[in-house]
Amino acid sequence: MIIGVIGCSDCERKYLELAESVGEKIAASGSILLCGGLSGVMESACIGAKKKNGVTVGILPGNDKSEANKYVDIAIVTGMGTARNNIIARTADVLIAIDGGYGTLSEIATALNIGKHVICLFSWDLAKIGKVENYHYVSTPEEAVKLALEIAKG
Amino acid sequence: MIIGVIGCSDCERKYLELAESVGEKIAASGSILLCGGLSGVMESACIGAKKKNGVTVGILPGNDKSEANKYVDIAIVTGMGTARNNIIARTADVLIAIDGGYGTLSEIATALNIGKHVICLFSWDLAKIGKVENYHYVSTPEEAVKLALEIAKG
Amino acid sequence: MIIGVIGCSDCERKYLELAESVGEKIAASGSILLCGGLSGVMESACIGAKKKNGVTVGILPGNDKSEANKYVDIAIVTGMGTARNNIIARTADVLIAIDGGYGTLSEIATALNIGKHVICLFSWDLAKIGKVENYHYVSTPEEAVKLALEIAKG
Amino acid sequence: MIIGVIGCSDCERKYLELAESVGEKIAASGSILLCGGLSGVMESACIGAKKKNGVTVGILPGNDKSEANKYVDIAIVTGMGTARNNIIARTADVLIAIDGGYGTLSEIATALNIGKHVICLFSWDLAKIGKVENYHYVSTPEEAVKLALEIAKG
Repeated sequence: MIIGVIGCSDCERKYLELAESVGEKIAASGSILLCGGLSGVMESACIGAKKKNGVTVGILPGNDKSEANKYVDIAIVTGMGTARNNIIARTADVLIAIDGGYGTLSEIATALNIGKHVICLFSWDLAKIGKVENYHYVSTPEEAVKLALEIAKG
Repeated sequence: MIIGVIGCSDCERKYLELAESVGEKIAASGSILLCGGLSGVMESACIGAKKKNGVTVGILPGNDKSEANKYVDIAIVTGMGTARNNIIARTADVLIAIDGGYGTLSEIATALNIGKHVICLFSWDLAKIGKVENYHYVSTPEEAVKLALEIAKG
Repeated sequence: MIIGVIGCSDCERKYLELAESVGEKIAASGSILLCGGLSGVMESACIGAKKKNGVTVGILPGNDKSEANKYVDIAIVTGMGTARNNIIARTADVLIAIDGGYGTLSEIATALNIGKHVICLFSWDLAKIGKVENYHYVSTPEEAVKLALEIAKG
Repeated sequence: MIIGVIGCSDCERKYLELAESVGEKIAASGSILLCGGLSGVMESACIGAKKKNGVTVGILPGNDKSEANKYVDIAIVTGMGTARNNIIARTADVLIAIDGGYGTLSEIATALNIGKHVICLFSWDLAKIGKVENYHYVSTPEEAVKLALEIAKG
C-alpha cells in the first residue's frame, strides 16, 4: 500500500506533530509513505515514518534531488513544478490531508476528481461547499491511518 | 491578453449560456480565449468567442487533436491527462470559473496557489472555507469579463 | 495545420537564416507555426512567420510568459521544463528539425516514437544509426515546407 | 544511488538476459533500480534486482498501477504518457540503455541534454552522428554497472 500525506511546507507546530504521528503509523502498518518531499507536513511525516523504519517516497517539483528533505528515501525528480501534484494524487492508494493551503487544495481536488479517497485531518472543509462523497473527516492520526488502511485494502 | 474559462464538461443549460456569453465578450475585447478544449462550459465559451471572430485555444488532456470541440482554433495536445490543468492555470492571465466539479476546483486552487486571480461566476464558494484574496465573485458575464480585463491589464 | 519547428536556442547564423525562411513559408501557406518559444531557431522561425502575418505559438518550459521571444503570438506557459518537448511533438501535425542539440534529438525521437513525421533540415543524421521510416531529409526551406504540407494534409 | 535502466518493452531474448543481469548487479551493489515499470527490458531488469532483494521503482505512463510489471516494488503513476520519460532521466543518478527504440532514444537524449551520463549496452550508436561526451560504450552487464556506480558516486 502507498499512503499519501499532503499539506503545507510551512505550518504551525501542532500540524507538524500530527503529521509526524501519521507518518509513524503509516510505517508501523508496513505501508509506504508518499509525499511531496519538501518541508513542513511532508518532512514531519517522513520523520515519523523513519522512526519506524518505513519507506518514504518524495515526488519533487524541481530539478534537483537535493531539494528533498533528508528523511526521503526515494526522491522522484519530476522537474514539472506543481504539475507533480497530479502524480501524488495518482500514485497514492489513498491520501491524508493535514492543514494545507491552495497547493494542498489542488491535490485534494485532483484526487477526488479521479475517484481517490481523501482523509481530512484539519484540512480544507469541503463539505461546507459541495458534495464530498470520498472526503472523510477525522480528528486524530490514529483514525486517519486506520481509515486510510481500510480504504486502501478495498 | 489570454483569458481562461474553466468549468464542467457536462453541466446545466443555464451555465452553458453564461459560458457562451463570457466567450463572446472575451473575443469582443480582442483577448484570446483559453480553455480545456472539450465539451460543456469549454465548448460554449468557444462558440461565443467564434461568434465575434475571436481566437480560441484548447489545452487537451489526451493524445489526439480530434478530441477538441469544433470551435477550438488551436488545439494543444498535451497527452498528460489532468496534469494539463496546470498549463491552463499558468497560461491564462486571469481565469473565469463557471459552475464546475472537482476538476475545476483543482484548476482554481492551482491558479490561486501560483498567484493568479480567479473570477467566480456561480462556481465553488471558496470564501466559506478559507481566505480568498484573489478570488472574485461576480454574477453576470459582463462583470466577469470586465473584471478579468482590468486584472489582466494590471 | 500546425507545423512545428525545432532546433537549438543558440546556433550558427546560417541555421537562423534557414529557420527564418521556413517560418516565412509556413505562414505563407496559412499554417500555424509551433515552436518552443525561446531564442535561436525558435525565434528566427517566428520572425519569418510574422513577416507573412502568420500565427506563432510557443510552448514554454518555464513559469513566466515573458521568457517567450517577442515574435510569439500565443505563449503556452507549461512550467514543466523539458517535459514540454512532448507537447510540441504531440501538437504539431508534422515537425521540421533544423540543426539542434540533444534537446532537439529528444523531440525528434519523441515524435517518431508516437508516429509523427519529422523533416530533417541539417539536423541529426538518424539514418546512420537506425531505421528512419518517418524521417525525411531535405536541403532547402522550400523542400522542407512543401513536404511538411503534403504530410500534414495526409 | 538510483540507477535507471531503459530499453524496449518488446525485444530479443539476448537483451532481456543482459537486462536481468544488469538488474541483479544494481541490486547487489545496494542501489535502487529505476525504470519505466512496463515489460521487456524494464521487467527483466526488475526480475534481476528482486533476485538480490533489491528495491525496484517503476515510473508508469498510464493511470493505473496495475500496468506495472509484477517485479516493481514502488509504482509511480504519472498519467502523463511519454512525458514520464523526463522523470526517469531526471530521477536516475545515471542511466544504462539496453537496445531500445525511439522511446529509449528520447530518454537518452533527454538525459544527455540535462547533463546526465548514459551507459550504452548495445543501444543507439550516437557516436556515429554527434559529440557524445557523457555517453559511454560498454559490452557487458559487469562493465555497465561498475561504470554506473563510479559515475553515480562522482
